[in-house]
Amino acid sequence: MKKFMDENFLLQTETAQKLYHEHAAKMPIFDYHCHLSPKEVAEDKQFENMAQIWLAGDHYKWRAMRTNGVEENYCTGDASDWDKFQKWAETVPQAIRNPLYHWTHLELKKFFGIEKLLSPETAEEIWEECNAKLNTPEYSCRNIIRMANVHTICTTDDPIDSLEYHQAIKADGFEVNVLPAWRPDKATMVDRVELWNEYVDQLADAANVEIDSFDAFLVAIEKRHQFFHDNGCRLSDHGLETAYAEDYTIAEINLIFDKVRSGLELSEPEILKFRSCMLYEFGVMDHAKGWTQQFHFGVIRNNSTRLFNQVGVDAGFDSIGDFPIAQPLAKMLDRLDSNNQLAQTILYNINPSDNEIYATMTGNFQDGSVAAKMQFGSGWWFLDQKDGMEKQMNALSNLGLLSRFVGMLTDSRSFLSYTRHEYFRRTLCNLLGNDVENGEIPNDMELLGQMVENICFYNAKEYFNFK
Amino acid sequence: MKKFMDENFLLQTETAQKLYHEHAAKMPIFDYHCHLSPKEVAEDKQFENMAQIWLAGDHYKWRAMRTNGVEENYCTGDASDWDKFQKWAETVPQAIRNPLYHWTHLELKKFFGIEKLLSPETAEEIWEECNAKLNTPEYSCRNIIRMANVHTICTTDDPIDSLEYHQAIKADGFEVNVLPAWRPDKATMVDRVELWNEYVDQLADAANVEIDSFDAFLVAIEKRHQFFHDNGCRLSDHGLETAYAEDYTIAEINLIFDKVRSGLELSEPEILKFRSCMLYEFGVMDHAKGWTQQFHFGVIRNNSTRLFNQVGVDAGFDSIGDFPIAQPLAKMLDRLDSNNQLAQTILYNINPSDNEIYATMTGNFQDGSVAAKMQFGSGWWFLDQKDGMEKQMNALSNLGLLSRFVGMLTDSRSFLSYTRHEYFRRTLCNLLGNDVENGEIPNDMELLGQMVENICFYNAKEYFNFK
Amino acid sequence: MKKFMDENFLLQTETAQKLYHEHAAKMPIFDYHCHLSPKEVAEDKQFENMAQIWLAGDHYKWRAMRTNGVEENYCTGDASDWDKFQKWAETVPQAIRNPLYHWTHLELKKFFGIEKLLSPETAEEIWEECNAKLNTPEYSCRNIIRMANVHTICTTDDPIDSLEYHQAIKADGFEVNVLPAWRPDKATMVDRVELWNEYVDQLADAANVEIDSFDAFLVAIEKRHQFFHDNGCRLSDHGLETAYAEDYTIAEINLIFDKVRSGLELSEPEILKFRSCMLYEFGVMDHAKGWTQQFHFGVIRNNSTRLFNQVGVDAGFDSIGDFPIAQPLAKMLDRLDSNNQLAQTILYNINPSDNEIYATMTGNFQDGSVAAKMQFGSGWWFLDQKDGMEKQMNALSNLGLLSRFVGMLTDSRSFLSYTRHEYFRRTLCNLLGNDVENGEIPNDMELLGQMVENICFYNAKEYFNFK
Repeated sequence: MKKFMDENFLLQTETAQKLYHEHAAKMPIFDYHCHLSPKEVAEDKQFENMAQIWLAGDHYKWRAMRTNGVEENYCTGDASDWDKFQKWAETVPQAIRNPLYHWTHLELKKFFGIEKLLSPETAEEIWEECNAKLNTPEYSCRNIIRMANVHTICTTDDPIDSLEYHQAIKADGFEVNVLPAWRPDKATMVDRVELWNEYVDQLADAANVEIDSFDAFLVAIEKRHQFFHDNGCRLSDHGLETAYAEDYTIAEINLIFDKVRSGLELSEPEILKFRSCMLYEFGVMDHAKGWTQQFHFGVIRNNSTRLFNQVGVDAGFDSIGDFPIAQPLAKMLDRLDSNNQLAQTILYNINPSDNEIYATMTGNFQDGSVAAKMQFGSGWWFLDQKDGMEKQMNALSNLGLLSRFVGMLTDSRSFLSYTRHEYFRRTLCNLLGNDVENGEIPNDMELLGQMVENICFYNAKEYFNFK
Repeated sequence: MKKFMDENFLLQTETAQKLYHEHAAKMPIFDYHCHLSPKEVAEDKQFENMAQIWLAGDHYKWRAMRTNGVEENYCTGDASDWDKFQKWAETVPQAIRNPLYHWTHLELKKFFGIEKLLSPETAEEIWEECNAKLNTPEYSCRNIIRMANVHTICTTDDPIDSLEYHQAIKADGFEVNVLPAWRPDKATMVDRVELWNEYVDQLADAANVEIDSFDAFLVAIEKRHQFFHDNGCRLSDHGLETAYAEDYTIAEINLIFDKVRSGLELSEPEILKFRSCMLYEFGVMDHAKGWTQQFHFGVIRNNSTRLFNQVGVDAGFDSIGDFPIAQPLAKMLDRLDSNNQLAQTILYNINPSDNEIYATMTGNFQDGSVAAKMQFGSGWWFLDQKDGMEKQMNALSNLGLLSRFVGMLTDSRSFLSYTRHEYFRRTLCNLLGNDVENGEIPNDMELLGQMVENICFYNAKEYFNFK
Repeated sequence: MKKFMDENFLLQTETAQKLYHEHAAKMPIFDYHCHLSPKEVAEDKQFENMAQIWLAGDHYKWRAMRTNGVEENYCTGDASDWDKFQKWAETVPQAIRNPLYHWTHLELKKFFGIEKLLSPETAEEIWEECNAKLNTPEYSCRNIIRMANVHTICTTDDPIDSLEYHQAIKADGFEVNVLPAWRPDKATMVDRVELWNEYVDQLADAANVEIDSFDAFLVAIEKRHQFFHDNGCRLSDHGLETAYAEDYTIAEINLIFDKVRSGLELSEPEILKFRSCMLYEFGVMDHAKGWTQQFHFGVIRNNSTRLFNQVGVDAGFDSIGDFPIAQPLAKMLDRLDSNNQLAQTILYNINPSDNEIYATMTGNFQDGSVAAKMQFGSGWWFLDQKDGMEKQMNALSNLGLLSRFVGMLTDSRSFLSYTRHEYFRRTLCNLLGNDVENGEIPNDMELLGQMVENICFYNAKEYFNFK
């Protein structure tokens, strides 16, 4: 019987252990997509206690707590930090088999050296020990990043963002690259007329462009795109329910733009045309500058109106959807490809039943220009766990080239989430180890060791066109 | 090599064996959803032979027999009981790897002590031995229920049912709780105008209410709901292709009701509005009385018109569908939740590709009021087998809290199906045992033993608000 | 640790090894669906080199090469055969975990006795050794077929095909049955008016019927159907995005036919009605003559317009779709079944998430006339690999009778693809071996050995009504 979460955690074979300890473990982290706050990095924030660094903003944990019968007050409300931590400690033993159980104990072990299991019995002890550490300079957020051996971080930023914190981080010589990424979702939210117009006003200010036509709108966006580029950005990201690939003419788009800009509601077909056009235009910009575009597909968000009104977005009421994806996605990518405007692209899927659709979709648009120009992105959000990672990597293996995969990203709001890379790497090495020991792939440790290092670090480093 | 179906059947590790034999095996059965006949329980029916108790009404077996090339006459026709049994015995060896193969031999072993495999060679011997036992008082249906250590049974009943058999069972002091459950599907079948109007007439009689308006219709339903409540019912159930959550006004519903009540056909949108309204109203009633509502989603029924005409419903021509579910289900639950009318809810899924949708959907509406108010129900019908159970439990584990799961139900028409609980319990213990021995969960037998007992019995006992 | 691809490749247990070596390995191959060229068989073609027999026409390999960053010129362009081979050799080590890695080395081993791994280092050596062999008479395509122990081959042929090569093969006494199969997809392509009319003109010539009405169209088709039948055909095949089962009247179809035959574009509903009608009519013909109909569902083809214009169809730009299938498929089959016109049918699925839909769909229309009249076809195209085969066999096992499965087919354009049968057989034996050793099925080697032989050969031999 293997001990719980020992050094060979998730590594069921000797080959897996060798691949992990000799190849994966030592690689730096290339975290090309996350939601860390550049402000906190710039200020080298120090967290007061474990509730602040671990529970605040973590909708995964809130969701588990609610499921465990914990009242909202202890999740997002004004209960004390200690009370919240205690409720979380009550929930953990009930979360056995949920990835939170692993993440929790990996983070306690990696960053705080704690091997005890979190439970009501150990809560106070762990709280004290972690808080004491958090209050030392060794646990400033930059030092946590250093502890995790991070090479590059790409945050997620709105086109109107000043990027002042990215500039500050660069200016003060932090040795880890902290780069912005372009997330222009708000520019396409024409279903919320008032909000969108406010946003366009802000965009006009940021770009110093008067936005009174669709052309001016694009000019403003392009100026911000250039500004991001000048600040080191090489990566965009879109959060979408499904792909948008309606037919449209520029004449139609001009009319639609004028209509919504004048404060009028759009019809559903108009909204879809507008979004289809914008995804094309964003793609063209990314292609022109050698960026990589990312698409996160398939989530239905804010399903509980009651809790949305109470707590707001990103608070744990999101869900896996079942949107048709194959045809619109093919059409969207083909439109760019036909015009030689298809940038490097990463497709992330939230419904594991669609993994094979995504894995084969990437194959349609590989053009031999670079290795795996089209990437099927790593298991994401709800799928960011052993089962989800394995399914993604198995689909990718069966239907594409795992060797060319750019690998893991944290996608997290927390500085303690870097252990997800460890989790991913162990899972990867375990898959390969099993294959070797079953005689399904050759026992060629040089080839496999290189493959592991590539997936953990070098593929991403080569793929993205960072300077 | 493990012996076929020995005492450690499905239990691949020592930890699994310990969890099963020391914790799961001893727990009583809380069978909160089945299709047993309360009349047969009331009369303590004695079955004449194995064809009567085993083949009559079992569309799983008919389906396998047809696939094996057996003519309809031996399935649902007037062949002799012995001939039917013989045809079933011919089919069994061809059913290796189908759950019927396991169920068959588990039932022979558990209830009749027979360890021989059923085949043409053993058919006569097994027929004689089982029939002899069936003809003793020890094999009355109540004694079979006692053999299975059943604590509670919830049947499935139409709102117009008199519940006379439930009352009789209670009156004569049977120590097992046999309670009705509310299944009002017929009240929403407004696509079949004549049938529906006949049904509404029967409902009017049962409730002693003249039904000449939608309000009166609801009053009649509510009276029956109260009657069920007074007879111990705390559970409703709906069999639906997908969720219905159209927008509607009460004025529209009044018009739709009057139209169909006067014998006119409804349009498709009218049907969907009516159903959406009824699901809301049923939900409100369940919430008001502290019931739990169950939804069985996704089956397409009676696919063979030829055999439907010949044999009728529930005869083995049903199939797994691919209806869009995420958005309508979110909207249906949100409508109740927004108005603080969301009862405890169990969602059952028939298409395993949708497991992750369901598992995340429950998370959106957990409100901390009780542990796992929203439940992702156990593998159902076609998925009521090892692979289906594992997928359901893995999805639930990854995306929710397995520890809070109310566990298994038989959903069966047969008194011999209680072995499905054994099957489920072995599968559960095996999953946990593998995790422990792989070092993926801690080797804490106190915690895991309690978790197993909870999922097998205590969670259900606490969750449902039976007196 | 097992050696890579040794004699017990994929066979993890002793039971699996016994089942494979004593039962599966010796069975002849009944290859009831492939895309081999009857012309090449008739001429007993000799291939010049490994690029010709291995890379030409193999869109699986092209796709992997493009993903590996290989330019189009080395895939489908005019690079030299040796250069193409070299680029493939570079790609192979990057294809670890992709089925191509296994297929490649199985084919090198089985047909050329080469156990070295293909890589840039071994490319030249393997190229020389294979080419030398290919240039001996022992490697004519008929001798390759003989090496693979093939019993029957069904090619894929258009109704207008002269079948001259099938006739020639038969006339010259080749001991392997090489039979045509009927693939009338072009007859339903009424969305491409000009192409379709040209095709109908060719059909008129082939059938010697003037096609000026829908009736005449059907007469012509039926004449060709009879001609195929006379030449030994007992099998049809349709490649479809989804099932078509619109309501239509013959009057409507007559009008639609006249419209498109006169060169006018059809509306989308007209196209769907026409296709629905044709699938019914084809089904009736197949039923009348005791044929088996095959449906390959769910692919979206030619997704890259750029590469389609450059390279044409079947060149590696196809993808797994997510078309709704359950309801239209049920309706399509029910229409035939209701009229007692449902032929033996094999349903192939390309989206593994739909496996359970297909597996239950077959169950609806089993009528007891023969064993497993309705078949859920083997893992196909993208799913023709271990994971895909296992998922298909597990779904079939759980929801139908694996014992009655007609098993594997190559579906290939290459004479070296017969190793896919070996791959399938090893996977099958491995599944059964694991079940036996886990105590999940009985250790009855007589029963299981027979089951394996049936699935590998005898079931297909009995199922298809070849003379």
